[in-house]
Amino acid sequence: MLFETKKPKEYDKKLIKDEIDLLQNRLSVLQQALKERKIPTIILIDGWSASGKGRMMSALNAELEPRDYSVFSSTTPEIGELRRPFLWRFWRDIPPKGKMGIFERGWYREVIDCFDDNSRRAADMIESIEVFERQLARDGYLVLKYFLHMDKKAQKERLDRLKDNETTSWRVNSSDFEQNEQYDKRFDTRSRLMAATNYQYAPWTVINNEDRTLGTHSFLTSVCESIEHALEHGLPPAPPPGTMFSKAQVPNPSTIIMPPAMEQKKYKESLKKLREEIHELHSRIYRKKIPVVMCFEGWDAAGKGGSIRRLSSALDPRGFDLHAIAAPTSEEISRHYLWRFFTRLPKTGHMAIFDRTWYGRVMVERVEKLTDPARWNDGYDEINEFERELVRWGAVVLKFWLQIDQQTQLARFVDRQETPEKQHKITDEDWRNRAKWGEYEQALLDMLEHTSTEQAPWTIIEANDKKFARIKVLKTVKEALEKALEE
Amino acid sequence: MLFETKKPKEYDKKLIKDEIDLLQNRLSVLQQALKERKIPTIILIDGWSASGKGRMMSALNAELEPRDYSVFSSTTPEIGELRRPFLWRFWRDIPPKGKMGIFERGWYREVIDCFDDNSRRAADMIESIEVFERQLARDGYLVLKYFLHMDKKAQKERLDRLKDNETTSWRVNSSDFEQNEQYDKRFDTRSRLMAATNYQYAPWTVINNEDRTLGTHSFLTSVCESIEHALEHGLPPAPPPGTMFSKAQVPNPSTIIMPPAMEQKKYKESLKKLREEIHELHSRIYRKKIPVVMCFEGWDAAGKGGSIRRLSSALDPRGFDLHAIAAPTSEEISRHYLWRFFTRLPKTGHMAIFDRTWYGRVMVERVEKLTDPARWNDGYDEINEFERELVRWGAVVLKFWLQIDQQTQLARFVDRQETPEKQHKITDEDWRNRAKWGEYEQALLDMLEHTSTEQAPWTIIEANDKKFARIKVLKTVKEALEKALEE
Repeated sequence: MLFETKKPKEYDKKLIKDEIDLLQNRLSVLQQALKERKIPTIILIDGWSASGKGRMMSALNAELEPRDYSVFSSTTPEIGELRRPFLWRFWRDIPPKGKMGIFERGWYREVIDCFDDNSRRAADMIESIEVFERQLARDGYLVLKYFLHMDKKAQKERLDRLKDNETTSWRVNSSDFEQNEQYDKRFDTRSRLMAATNYQYAPWTVINNEDRTLGTHSFLTSVCESIEHALEHGLPPAPPPGTMFSKAQVPNPSTIIMPPAMEQKKYKESLKKLREEIHELHSRIYRKKIPVVMCFEGWDAAGKGGSIRRLSSALDPRGFDLHAIAAPTSEEISRHYLWRFFTRLPKTGHMAIFDRTWYGRVMVERVEKLTDPARWNDGYDEINEFERELVRWGAVVLKFWLQIDQQTQLARFVDRQETPEKQHKITDEDWRNRAKWGEYEQALLDMLEHTSTEQAPWTIIEANDKKFARIKVLKTVKEALEKALEE
Repeated sequence: MLFETKKPKEYDKKLIKDEIDLLQNRLSVLQQALKERKIPTIILIDGWSASGKGRMMSALNAELEPRDYSVFSSTTPEIGELRRPFLWRFWRDIPPKGKMGIFERGWYREVIDCFDDNSRRAADMIESIEVFERQLARDGYLVLKYFLHMDKKAQKERLDRLKDNETTSWRVNSSDFEQNEQYDKRFDTRSRLMAATNYQYAPWTVINNEDRTLGTHSFLTSVCESIEHALEHGLPPAPPPGTMFSKAQVPNPSTIIMPPAMEQKKYKESLKKLREEIHELHSRIYRKKIPVVMCFEGWDAAGKGGSIRRLSSALDPRGFDLHAIAAPTSEEISRHYLWRFFTRLPKTGHMAIFDRTWYGRVMVERVEKLTDPARWNDGYDEINEFERELVRWGAVVLKFWLQIDQQTQLARFVDRQETPEKQHKITDEDWRNRAKWGEYEQALLDMLEHTSTEQAPWTIIEANDKKFARIKVLKTVKEALEKALEE
């Protein structure tokens, strides 16, 4: 159905060309309207070999304000890209609010090659794409996808023409002609892929580009009309995240029993032993190219920094990155909230330690009313979907909540305030957060309920005693790495 | 002389270890002082194979605030990095003000391999490094370089020990042992390289790391003392750029004779022909992997945008990027001003078009007093040095100044104000800039005098007539590409 495009008939070429000029001007006005309304737009252009993607992109950009769009052409992924989840490089390139990202082929380039084999991998990729496009649409991105179409005969003619011209012959090679020979099979695959990914919030439009002038005209018309529709009637509706995730039991941190303080001698011995074991496991993880993502959350003054330090100083600094997450920068705030986490994922074989994480979405952003309730509510399953990407990629995902009680926090705050070297660690904000303990506690319980999943369960760390907490963190890390190496 | 380190003797290991703890704490306090003073710091750690670089980095980071430092380990460059100038990836990674960048081997990794062959390339690399470190130091970066040393026998012992241990044997390979066999020759090369790059503003310190405890102690002592010295007495002085660049003649734009308006018919024909020629040249440039950097500067309303559009729409959008340079973001303002240009350089075979450029340093930053006169004065030769990097890398560098007279600007401003679709192109700032015509004219003349070099001359475009201007731009581009393809 997607492919039922009108056949070109005789027409007044001059008239159509003038209309194209007008469409390009109209598009530049629309671009400014999108900018004013702070709507980010993604335009993806896929199509058969030699279907004229490059020229179509030229026609699209002709009158656009260069400050407000970026072009991402189809490239073979580099090593660092191959060592990240499939969509990593596209997450990296999403435009900020009010700007346009124009993708040649984009995330459909890789999926088409394996779509036909009915593999688990292909099914996962389709699901990843669905999540990616839905999460963006749900966050206010306008997502438009185009496929430049030509029939077998028209493609063959264009390939021949390119090949026979001295200045363009390098653009075509034998695989293009092979593709043409297998056109019917490929058409079938392509149709099924597009049907499977033709979402209301990220629809495909097929443009018949056998005649470039008519093709350009209908492409620009469609882009203009889609943008106008979005400006007048709002973006096409995107559903909330819908998958069910199996939940993993997790104790209620508020009622957890705190163990007695650990003896100094036992602590020192365990610490030394665990650090040596983790150091060695790290080098095996590195050689086996397993990525590791470790998340630290907890009350202010619960001892996240101290636990992370005991862990990180046992690791080879060349094999991990430590990300201390603070308030988002202007670059970060103007994109989907997962952007700054996606872009910080490690390479396979490397570790990323997050001191505070994407869970800020459903904690601080909720309690401090920084985000609309509908959006942070989506956050639970958006996060589960994000973590599913990590797990499928092969990552070890560890999530720690460092629990202390209110009295312990008070004692540590007072200590920080009274100790000159620690004063920089305590601010008015810490006291303000403390005053909202009850609200944070509710947010915490909801977070654990919704995001302690079988794929990525939470570990609650009893942290009234710092020594116990550090040892439990290290032990959990050690066991998780051992398990990953066994598999 | 660099390598005359004290030999370890008998010592109280427990005492030294306690001192290391103290040094790590002292460093964390110093880190906060650097942050408050907004001083960016670069610490580079090089050393023989198996000299303990990883552990030294761990010791360095042990008590640092993770928010305020980043680690860059030594990696083989990826394709996208190889297709940029040698220092591109290190420019990309320089820390912002107040933060620390810790580099394992960094830019010395690549140069050591070719330093011995006395090639032109090695000499160029050394010059590039000198410029890089000096420009950073001159901009307020504290640059510290360490080499972890051990003698031939100590290295052999450590390699053997690594090899014999099951968990570490993968870390060493035959090339490490080969290195050890050729130690004397390598020592000689290394000494000469370090002597050649031992600048007062970016000095080398050799740390004898045969005994790790003593090595760590002297390393941390040196880092602490260097930072304390910088905090108390200021950074080590870095000289201004000193190279002489051969100048290329350029007419005075203020007295240039504007040609008569071009006929519409002739314009249309020339435009069509030039665009076709450039389209084809672009594909040859792409295949020959020549990078192209095109800079557009000119008075407000001189027609930069229109000229760029006529050029860019003739190019395949997959082969160029258009960078519209506006006021720097907070990420950009907190680094050396060339950072945002270095990071935007194209891959070989690609083109980058800059709508406004690094010349803002000596134009708007000067006239609007955004930058200290001593610093923008450095800018001329810093820019010449930057462009020399581009030329050595093999880039075609084109720099256009679009010249109009004051009356023409007034007429265009008025037209913009009176035409609804053009109103967004004119702001109060344009009028304020216009009021400073004289000051900008002086800045322009100084800029042309200092930066129209033989390696990268300016082209003045007479732009009172837009058609003439566009044709002259396209013609200049065409000829430059042809010339590059002939070489």
